[in-house]
Amino acid sequence: MAGAVAALLRSQGRVEVHAIGPAAVNQAVKALAIARGYLLGDGLDLTVQPAFLKLDVADEERTALTFRVEGIRPG
Amino acid sequence: MAGAVAALLRSQGRVEVHAIGPAAVNQAVKALAIARGYLLGDGLDLTVQPAFLKLDVADEERTALTFRVEGIRPG
Repeated sequence: MAGAVAALLRSQGRVEVHAIGPAAVNQAVKALAIARGYLLGDGLDLTVQPAFLKLDVADEERTALTFRVEGIRPG
Repeated sequence: MAGAVAALLRSQGRVEVHAIGPAAVNQAVKALAIARGYLLGDGLDLTVQPAFLKLDVADEERTALTFRVEGIRPG
């Protein structure tokens, strides 16, 4: 997932990642930390804005966390 | 924790949050999402940069996730 995030930030400048449950949230955050390392070589970094999101999963409403990820030039 | 993050961002502009383990990481991300809501009323928002961090806990090295949180004016 880290590679996909880095590739999308390089090509599109932003990407959104959704996660439901502590294990998925933890994996997403780790992937974002790893993606920062991948972007370093391109002179890029990323910032994240977490938010809650209601998702319908198998006809049940679940609260997901969404990560709005933006590629930036490090300051 | 969300209230503390919001208060520190208002007064200092930045704060760092460490979390070890999926449950703590999940809680930290939720707190950051909630803190964004608290900051809205002040015309502020936040961005996060996740990174890995080696911590010594009870003489054992543990890998933590650290969230570098910065207060911003929403664009």
